[in-house]
Amino acid sequence: MKVDGTAMRSIWPVGDAAVGVIDQRLLPHRLETRELRSVGAVEDAIRTMTVRGAPLIGVSGAYGLALALRTDPSDAALAAAHARLLEARPTAVNLRWALDRVRAVVAGLPADRRAAASWQEAQRIAEEDVALNRALGGHGAGLLGALHQRSGRTVNVLTHCNTGWLAAVDLGTALSAVYTAHDAGVPVHVWVDETRPRNQGLLTVWELAAHGVPHSLIVDNAGGHLMQRGEVDVVIVGADRVSARGDVANKIGTYLKAVAAFDCGVPFYVAVPSPTIDWQVADGRTIPIEERAASEVLQVTGLDDRESPARIQLMPAVTPVANPAFDVTPARLVTGIITERGVADPGRLRDLFPEQRHAA
Amino acid sequence: MKVDGTAMRSIWPVGDAAVGVIDQRLLPHRLETRELRSVGAVEDAIRTMTVRGAPLIGVSGAYGLALALRTDPSDAALAAAHARLLEARPTAVNLRWALDRVRAVVAGLPADRRAAASWQEAQRIAEEDVALNRALGGHGAGLLGALHQRSGRTVNVLTHCNTGWLAAVDLGTALSAVYTAHDAGVPVHVWVDETRPRNQGLLTVWELAAHGVPHSLIVDNAGGHLMQRGEVDVVIVGADRVSARGDVANKIGTYLKAVAAFDCGVPFYVAVPSPTIDWQVADGRTIPIEERAASEVLQVTGLDDRESPARIQLMPAVTPVANPAFDVTPARLVTGIITERGVADPGRLRDLFPEQRHAA
Repeated sequence: MKVDGTAMRSIWPVGDAAVGVIDQRLLPHRLETRELRSVGAVEDAIRTMTVRGAPLIGVSGAYGLALALRTDPSDAALAAAHARLLEARPTAVNLRWALDRVRAVVAGLPADRRAAASWQEAQRIAEEDVALNRALGGHGAGLLGALHQRSGRTVNVLTHCNTGWLAAVDLGTALSAVYTAHDAGVPVHVWVDETRPRNQGLLTVWELAAHGVPHSLIVDNAGGHLMQRGEVDVVIVGADRVSARGDVANKIGTYLKAVAAFDCGVPFYVAVPSPTIDWQVADGRTIPIEERAASEVLQVTGLDDRESPARIQLMPAVTPVANPAFDVTPARLVTGIITERGVADPGRLRDLFPEQRHAA
Repeated sequence: MKVDGTAMRSIWPVGDAAVGVIDQRLLPHRLETRELRSVGAVEDAIRTMTVRGAPLIGVSGAYGLALALRTDPSDAALAAAHARLLEARPTAVNLRWALDRVRAVVAGLPADRRAAASWQEAQRIAEEDVALNRALGGHGAGLLGALHQRSGRTVNVLTHCNTGWLAAVDLGTALSAVYTAHDAGVPVHVWVDETRPRNQGLLTVWELAAHGVPHSLIVDNAGGHLMQRGEVDVVIVGADRVSARGDVANKIGTYLKAVAAFDCGVPFYVAVPSPTIDWQVADGRTIPIEERAASEVLQVTGLDDRESPARIQLMPAVTPVANPAFDVTPARLVTGIITERGVADPGRLRDLFPEQRHAA
């Protein structure tokens, strides 16, 4: 997508010994890029959320494995790099998927061919992600277009977290549907959940403003009220992991929006490329939920009076805090799952992916 | 309640020509008091949320009317002061109730007796509020005690916004139940919703810490997940207004917690003194919902590196924002309403208040 008229992605190769990324901790205030030159740098970028968003984490991990193999192509180094990268964000299924895929490609190769092959595989994963998101965006835009056809009015979409091109390689997941509909002339307006504690909604506002899509920022508390008042036509979110039977692990707070949408009769869709579906897990309640640092809740970043990035402390650091990063929305609250192959009832994901018919 | 060992209320008379209040905009960072010496000062304090919380707003309004009548005891001045105070927070039914009560007392009096009579009535309203909250706290503590009896474990209470002594004159509403239970030896732990955009949950954390009640601060997004995991035994909130049939207008986000509690089978209680019940309104959906300034969402206050209060800007001031301050939880999602006369099914409030049997 474009920033100030220039096409940009969230991750890109720099020669064959580094990857460039946007330091997303500084957005929406400052656009700064970083070059990651080692597996440690990639691990750190994932852990600190310099890069975030399930698809981008997966691609970053793939490049991280390739960088590790450039330094040491041994089996031991491969295993160690795979393990340390996976540890960085345990909830993200794309990360495991991407790491496994790179490992599978290089496992049978002689050591001297592993660096190049893994680098190539990481690039392939990135390109495939863009293609998947383009396809699922088309299916999602079809839903938005149909809502517009029915009402004749602007379609009000509520979304949570950031699922745009910053979270993927390009386009995004849930926001890919919005961008595709907007670009096709469907009038859309997006209610953007702030998404505490890390305020990823601000990234969404930044993206939508840059692309010219009408939107309003709201606090996470407001969405239910807007649904009650008929001001939300559809909720579309992304996911960190979708179980084989359609349970959805996503950013903390997603469940609250899903249960309110169900109560208000508002359709609730989840947009994911198929690598986000974990065919090995049936019951979403078994997905491990990351508990993150109290400082995420207690500190907030913004701009001070002099427009410089500044961090404030909401409460003393000794304040007891619980900070679960994700929740699991049961399939019964999900209207449909938008994938690159079309839209499925959450209980019928295998209809779109018959090759997974033997999954959990 | 006590602060650093000293008994304190949220509002107190200073002679008979001013009222003292805590500047709640500076909490939890700094405890500063203000003296309000005119109706304009009181109106401003209500509007800017220097004072906040339905009961405290009502008492403040009563004192404001008395201060107005001290300057000008005419009928015209009475009507003008009543109108301007009511305008300051249109959703708060306690404000109208308290203003009407003072007006009714002074309306039949000669001008020279109005100032003293209204001042006395404001003090009476304040004392009654404390007595009401003591009574409802006892009923609420009974519920918490019963939950502890049944489980034998610590009772995990989730609450939203601030409903403690800072929001009332003393004790509070929902938190009065918690304090009363805690003081009676019932083991309680409180999950405190941050309560964006104004973060009143931080006031709750400050109160609970000062009183020694175990608690954890959570973002507003987290409560549903905690309920799903069985980590919430009961939700107790306050209200800005309860309709005659038990619909609950309260801080934005309350509905999301109520609908999740319903989905998870967690009891959801609303603690209110009876002046918060609006017997003239049956359908809560007709209660006007205040839309507040975008700056509440876009700016956050905390402490900077030097421990000085500081404000940061999350996004540029031009960012489109919607900021509804309240939502309405339908009675069907409410387990019970805790009042000074006991706990009622939301649809059977009149059983506790038979004198209102002709209400809407």
